[in-house]
Amino acid sequence: MEERKIKVGITHGDINGIGYEVILKAFADPVMLELCTPVIYGSPKVAAYHRKAMDIQTNFSIVPSAAEAQDGRVNIVNCTADELKVELTRPSAEAGKAALDALERALQEYQEGYFDVLVTAPINKHTIQSDNFHFPGHTEYIEERVGEGQKALMILLKNDFRVALVTGHVPVSEISSQITKELIMEKLDIFHKSLKKDFGIDNPRIAVFSLNPHAGDEGLLGTEEQTVIIPAMQEMIANGVQCFGPYPADGFMGSGNYTYFDGILAMYHDQGLAPFKALAMDEGVNFTAGLPIVRTSPAHGTAYDIAGKGVASEDSFRQAVYVAIDVFRRRCMEAEINAHPLRRQYYEKRDDSDKLKLDTVED
Amino acid sequence: MEERKIKVGITHGDINGIGYEVILKAFADPVMLELCTPVIYGSPKVAAYHRKAMDIQTNFSIVPSAAEAQDGRVNIVNCTADELKVELTRPSAEAGKAALDALERALQEYQEGYFDVLVTAPINKHTIQSDNFHFPGHTEYIEERVGEGQKALMILLKNDFRVALVTGHVPVSEISSQITKELIMEKLDIFHKSLKKDFGIDNPRIAVFSLNPHAGDEGLLGTEEQTVIIPAMQEMIANGVQCFGPYPADGFMGSGNYTYFDGILAMYHDQGLAPFKALAMDEGVNFTAGLPIVRTSPAHGTAYDIAGKGVASEDSFRQAVYVAIDVFRRRCMEAEINAHPLRRQYYEKRDDSDKLKLDTVED
Repeated sequence: MEERKIKVGITHGDINGIGYEVILKAFADPVMLELCTPVIYGSPKVAAYHRKAMDIQTNFSIVPSAAEAQDGRVNIVNCTADELKVELTRPSAEAGKAALDALERALQEYQEGYFDVLVTAPINKHTIQSDNFHFPGHTEYIEERVGEGQKALMILLKNDFRVALVTGHVPVSEISSQITKELIMEKLDIFHKSLKKDFGIDNPRIAVFSLNPHAGDEGLLGTEEQTVIIPAMQEMIANGVQCFGPYPADGFMGSGNYTYFDGILAMYHDQGLAPFKALAMDEGVNFTAGLPIVRTSPAHGTAYDIAGKGVASEDSFRQAVYVAIDVFRRRCMEAEINAHPLRRQYYEKRDDSDKLKLDTVED
Repeated sequence: MEERKIKVGITHGDINGIGYEVILKAFADPVMLELCTPVIYGSPKVAAYHRKAMDIQTNFSIVPSAAEAQDGRVNIVNCTADELKVELTRPSAEAGKAALDALERALQEYQEGYFDVLVTAPINKHTIQSDNFHFPGHTEYIEERVGEGQKALMILLKNDFRVALVTGHVPVSEISSQITKELIMEKLDIFHKSLKKDFGIDNPRIAVFSLNPHAGDEGLLGTEEQTVIIPAMQEMIANGVQCFGPYPADGFMGSGNYTYFDGILAMYHDQGLAPFKALAMDEGVNFTAGLPIVRTSPAHGTAYDIAGKGVASEDSFRQAVYVAIDVFRRRCMEAEINAHPLRRQYYEKRDDSDKLKLDTVED
């Protein structure tokens, strides 16, 4: 594997929230620069403002693009207007534009191959909306812009605890009608492949949550388990995907059962994210699976309520950088392993009369 | 306050699960008998079977009824057929009948005033169904039998972390239509009163969850927040109930915000119970608020999968006993305080021209 530093593109997100604080704090530790070369897409002036306001000792170098980023430094590419007003703790249209400008520039440079992985600081999903951005969030935008036709799956993770959702930003009244056999199969397929390829788990075990309380209690509390979820799981099992359940979410989380699985597929937003965040918010990472680009973000939002106070924890952001690097390395390794396969030295076992002959050489 | 031991009625629940194990383990510690006098409604033979199978050193005395229970002993009232087959780890009709027989006997003796508080070991909600029992669970049955027309509210709690639900055993497809302004107000009212009376919190603060992800995101992800939840909260606030929100469940749990409230009202089953059990299953207690009877139970179920193995933790059951005793004491104390009120020594302040005269005696 090539001995070069992995280049991490970082978008600054909402300049009125805790984005710069967690970025600068994470890279205050020089060890981080031995691990990777960061390139912030943002504004040097705003970065300096936050640095001074919270007295964070992180130096950065302005570069015209990530192509000229230097190892051992925190690089920053200016993507915004020269005059930009920071209004800590509140949403503003200016901040929304600045967030979008940085994101667009980052995706352009990603397509040029100027960096390896993308870590996004949190945006305000309202102020960023514009003619170019009419998506519920980062994930959908990135899927559209650089997804190359692949479908994205958001995975929230902390170490081996990984949660993905079948439906996301959907009103509760519409959840049931949106959950189809095809959708569950699609999500299971992306999840399974990502666990294998991105996390290096040979034969991943996925737990599937039930939609209804008590897994529908034999039909008394809903029938989707019987009509939709179990058929979808059976078909995926036939396709070689190890999935188990459907489990009632509350008992599953309470029994600690989640520690025995490589991934958990929840049916809807609060069912998956409320227990995930209760247990793992501090170091939670949002990973966008299913796309060619490796993209992560911290699990928290703009956190306007504590912006500029210097009390935000950078743990989640740092973990987001780690996860992006890990996934990138694993993908590189897999590509390398599969580049020059060895000749097969053995027969596949066909039936009991077959002998395994390790010394046989194929013709 | 009367210096007598509080009598705790305990129903044995499903004899094929971990009920007897957690009861006997909890009372293996003699300190428990200094705190209360337990009366198990169950079967001495089945108790002996479990004690022997798991080598638990808890002795008990057979008594004809709780009226004759002795302090310093684990008393047991035989409520079942003489011959009763224990089939560890599996549901059986016989066990369902034994669970119901014990529960009925306990409620009869409660009505006679033979014990003070009720702690129920877990039942199997399917096998217990009969002509006399056609309820989703203990709570509804107890409400009907000894509720004296009051409405029950299930509160899951561990120390100061208390979660109640607006809707419970409801399919996800029906949640939205079941949530009404009246229902939310009813639940808030019971919750508020219970926090005051049962937990001694003078002016309790209740956090209310939103129904939809991101609290409906200003209507993009559902409108129930605007049309139902907020109006219900406003009316309750006008009635003097301190409630806050509606908060998105995931962010609320992730930020640790729940530590600042005395109670959390979730809109539906998994939204409240998945994060609660993720954080607090080990010592979680289910308390039935709103009724004259004080009734608690452990947060776990029959746990057939580990029945008879001796590995079940009695922590949750022990906490259920503690909570029942605490609530009972607090209710007694409040009754005593209010029995002979002092004459008022001061005027209510009416406007700024009023003087507070502490030495004034009313005529």
